[in-house]
Amino acid sequence: MPKLILVRHGQSEWNLENRFTGWWDVDLTDKGVEEARSAGRLIAEKGLAPTRCFTSVLTRAIRTLHLALYEAKMLYLPVTKDWRLNERHYGGLTGLNKQEMRDKVGDEQVHIWRRSFDVPPPPQDEDDKYRMDADPRYKGIDIPDTESLKDTIARVMPYYEEQIVPHLKAGETVLISAHGNSLRALEKHLSNISDDEITGLEIPTGRPILYELDDQLNALSRAYLDEA
Amino acid sequence: MPKLILVRHGQSEWNLENRFTGWWDVDLTDKGVEEARSAGRLIAEKGLAPTRCFTSVLTRAIRTLHLALYEAKMLYLPVTKDWRLNERHYGGLTGLNKQEMRDKVGDEQVHIWRRSFDVPPPPQDEDDKYRMDADPRYKGIDIPDTESLKDTIARVMPYYEEQIVPHLKAGETVLISAHGNSLRALEKHLSNISDDEITGLEIPTGRPILYELDDQLNALSRAYLDEA
Repeated sequence: MPKLILVRHGQSEWNLENRFTGWWDVDLTDKGVEEARSAGRLIAEKGLAPTRCFTSVLTRAIRTLHLALYEAKMLYLPVTKDWRLNERHYGGLTGLNKQEMRDKVGDEQVHIWRRSFDVPPPPQDEDDKYRMDADPRYKGIDIPDTESLKDTIARVMPYYEEQIVPHLKAGETVLISAHGNSLRALEKHLSNISDDEITGLEIPTGRPILYELDDQLNALSRAYLDEA
Repeated sequence: MPKLILVRHGQSEWNLENRFTGWWDVDLTDKGVEEARSAGRLIAEKGLAPTRCFTSVLTRAIRTLHLALYEAKMLYLPVTKDWRLNERHYGGLTGLNKQEMRDKVGDEQVHIWRRSFDVPPPPQDEDDKYRMDADPRYKGIDIPDTESLKDTIARVMPYYEEQIVPHLKAGETVLISAHGNSLRALEKHLSNISDDEITGLEIPTGRPILYELDDQLNALSRAYLDEA
């Protein structure tokens, strides 16, 4: 039976500071490191045997995966990193403290940007200090200026279909370490969640979610691994 | 100009205990962790920009690579893990304290096994407690019972030619984290070292070696990065 294990990265420095992060490459906090380790121990304790892993090109997700695999004694597993599993790009909101944003533009506009399905935040300015144009990890990639959740889904799902689905169809257990919104894309698809409802789905950090799938990759069950 | 950076994993628990390790999956010591971190800082300080990494399927080499990449802020780089970059398989010597071996069979026989080019150690017994037959990382692979250095070279070099050379020919900088004997295979080829002399080449743990190569991948220079 194919299985898919989803893990949102452990707490990051900017989760803690309540700042919009998106593609900016912040590290895990000490708490985030411990969350990642716990996730790995849980995967091993539950007897899961992933054969292949995927993650974004962002340090917080890669490190979460590495720490989990180390704890699970599975560091040898193949890992593929791809920008298409990155967090949603928050455009001009990147780097801003969420409370400051609320004070500046009002609760309602912040809520619209964060939670609407297809309204992107304002784009990053040309001179925004959080632009990543020169970052070698994005060489040859057309970095978005901003993304709605719909935009995020539009790059996550083709990657899932092309790169991950073939392994699931072969009956493998796949582990994905990613981000709130790239995981929402996958959960929306697997759990058949509407556009309106998906924006409200909160995925906790460092708590592995296990999907058991049928041959057609329809979800038979979804459970937090610490409750399974 | 193509560049190849070779790093032998940091000190392992069995390096410290002076035991034959081979394919047995021991972890790094605290000193080994620090060696790996230093290697990463050095790669960044020297302005090297690897685009692709390779390592074995053994924890000590993978962790060395991960720790180095984290320190160098290059955790996003693609990493390929393959058993063909594993340490030489020490057969029936695996797990033995080197001093105990000397006491048992005499210095000369130990020296022959460790240092001869084409004499393998005795094979692992069927019931040897350090056999790895059930290890999922070797599923579908015909695990050797023992290997000479010549045997090790015979699996490292085809892997190098098939998987690593194409990236070097494209002008990339490639980083390999591996083991004393799998790195000897590469150094023998790149520095054109004889069968007799290669067995005496000591490669220190955690000290990156930089090869600068020409278009035909002949070595133009070889230097320890901390002396470059």
